[in-house]
Amino acid sequence: MEWQNELTRLVKTSYPIVQAPMLGVTTPAMVAAISNAGGLGSLPVGGLSPDQTRSLILQTKALTTKPFAVNLFAHQNSPVNTAQADQMLQFLKKLCAQHQINYPKPDLNSIIFHSYEEQIDILLEENIPVVSFTFGILNKEVIHAFKEKGTVLIGTATYLAEATLLEQNGIDCITAQGMEAGGHRGTFLDSKTLPLIGSFSLIPLVAENCQVPVLAAGGIYNGKTIKAAFTLGAKGVQLGSAFISSNESLAIESYKKSIHDAAETDSVLTKTFSGRWARGIQNKFMMEVENSGLAIPDYPIQNALTTPLRVLAQKQNNKDFTTLWAGQSASKAESKPAGEIFQKLIKETESLP
Amino acid sequence: MEWQNELTRLVKTSYPIVQAPMLGVTTPAMVAAISNAGGLGSLPVGGLSPDQTRSLILQTKALTTKPFAVNLFAHQNSPVNTAQADQMLQFLKKLCAQHQINYPKPDLNSIIFHSYEEQIDILLEENIPVVSFTFGILNKEVIHAFKEKGTVLIGTATYLAEATLLEQNGIDCITAQGMEAGGHRGTFLDSKTLPLIGSFSLIPLVAENCQVPVLAAGGIYNGKTIKAAFTLGAKGVQLGSAFISSNESLAIESYKKSIHDAAETDSVLTKTFSGRWARGIQNKFMMEVENSGLAIPDYPIQNALTTPLRVLAQKQNNKDFTTLWAGQSASKAESKPAGEIFQKLIKETESLP
Repeated sequence: MEWQNELTRLVKTSYPIVQAPMLGVTTPAMVAAISNAGGLGSLPVGGLSPDQTRSLILQTKALTTKPFAVNLFAHQNSPVNTAQADQMLQFLKKLCAQHQINYPKPDLNSIIFHSYEEQIDILLEENIPVVSFTFGILNKEVIHAFKEKGTVLIGTATYLAEATLLEQNGIDCITAQGMEAGGHRGTFLDSKTLPLIGSFSLIPLVAENCQVPVLAAGGIYNGKTIKAAFTLGAKGVQLGSAFISSNESLAIESYKKSIHDAAETDSVLTKTFSGRWARGIQNKFMMEVENSGLAIPDYPIQNALTTPLRVLAQKQNNKDFTTLWAGQSASKAESKPAGEIFQKLIKETESLP
Repeated sequence: MEWQNELTRLVKTSYPIVQAPMLGVTTPAMVAAISNAGGLGSLPVGGLSPDQTRSLILQTKALTTKPFAVNLFAHQNSPVNTAQADQMLQFLKKLCAQHQINYPKPDLNSIIFHSYEEQIDILLEENIPVVSFTFGILNKEVIHAFKEKGTVLIGTATYLAEATLLEQNGIDCITAQGMEAGGHRGTFLDSKTLPLIGSFSLIPLVAENCQVPVLAAGGIYNGKTIKAAFTLGAKGVQLGSAFISSNESLAIESYKKSIHDAAETDSVLTKTFSGRWARGIQNKFMMEVENSGLAIPDYPIQNALTTPLRVLAQKQNNKDFTTLWAGQSASKAESKPAGEIFQKLIKETESLP
């Protein structure tokens, strides 16, 4: 197994293996563990304030001198439909009361949605070597600023048209997010239906049609799946679920247990938590919101409305009212230090014929 | 590349490559071409009368002395909801009138649903070496009869619970149908939601948990995808879409053109044609039925109701009113003799490092 290729040369790592950015799960310690082990850790800062962004970067830098990626949410914010948001808020209050949860009602007027544009100066100042993004494409000025600086850019595509657009805009590497992947779908171009392309079709399709290296995401969890992704044309792989149960994860114990116990059919697509489609283990909250029949406000409005509830549920180790993002192969996740999980992946891959 | 393995020894072929049974597309000539080339052709006879079944088998036998599989639909028929069926019938009549199609109204009382049980004696008498099935599991008496005869049995699973049940019932090989696959979903066990597991997650999951050989279906179209499926643990691969445009296919020209032009997102899941979920290229008929808001009668009732329309549309080379089943990688299908398509797959796979 020859690990060095155009992707490792681009991002300057020993292995073309990326830890997926998982907001609410990934810590600076997880990012540093992967980068120190020779992979590329990814620090998620999507939607965070400039101050939080800088603080997390500095925490990560204190733990590693190796390259790591910072991940942005590259969407444009929709205007808030106040009536719709208020209806959802009333429903969430009632739902919480029914379950003896003390829901701290957010003030709709005080919710601030931070745009990625507020974070760019910090990333440039902090000399972040790799910037990945999802939910859209960075604007031309931002791409230009990163190019001037020599920053490597990685964009997320869920179907070919998105991959082609990213490449045409000078993005250096494309994450091909198969439908098996846990967490939010990166889809950003309009399509008749939500693009849910399996990794088996998506990886070769993007690899055959784009010149830039492809990073395969979705369904990868061991040596065999890493090797198969490379056979299909990927130059690197990105794993998320594999690190959810790691020691460095923020995931609560009941979330880790849900992942461990999950059948492949337990992970479903939902908009209930954030207003964007995401894959996770089905729980009471998803079903209650879906059964309510209410329109779900767009991302990031629904995300803001459910945040206080999720924070509270996490404090109480309550898996019924928080996100349990997980891919279709998530049950393979092990409870170990992230660096050990990473080393095992390398060993398994190298041991294959 | 060592092609001989437990699957080739089981089904007695040179290569562990199976042509998927595609009712309405596959011909005896296609089956024979694949078996003559050293693969396993599959003759679809699901729902056909005993006479039609025997006739197709004899036609195939006239073209090859090599082993081929015969494919059954192993479901139980639901009772007909006459009011629902009649409502759909009225809608179909109106739809046809709007599009100047002369819809020959089927007589609901005259529709006969042939059970696979009517076909078993013929398969035993004709010494069919391999019997594959989908939509369910053969009953214990039928499995016993085939076992006595030495027939190899292949069942279809769309998630692990189905695969486990098939293995527990003595089935010799399991087709793991990833969500990328074109045509009907084989799902037969109840699940909270329709199981749509990507091949990247499903192949290793079934391979790791079952002792019998796994046949990977969904997203396979060239040497790289064949090799990747083996890396993930499959002992064989099944390709359908790759043969739709072959010379031996029944597919009309406008269907072949739709496949050729299809983007990966054009193939969607629908119940509109048959009452069972199936993946195909979206067309006017699907959208009209979906937009009608009518309840779709269960399989095989809806299938019977739409049959006259589909037959007529096919005669008129009209892709708007017939099934355009296609997987997520279907656009790779080539217009060539099936045997040449098969030989190319072998060569491509063997040329890989």
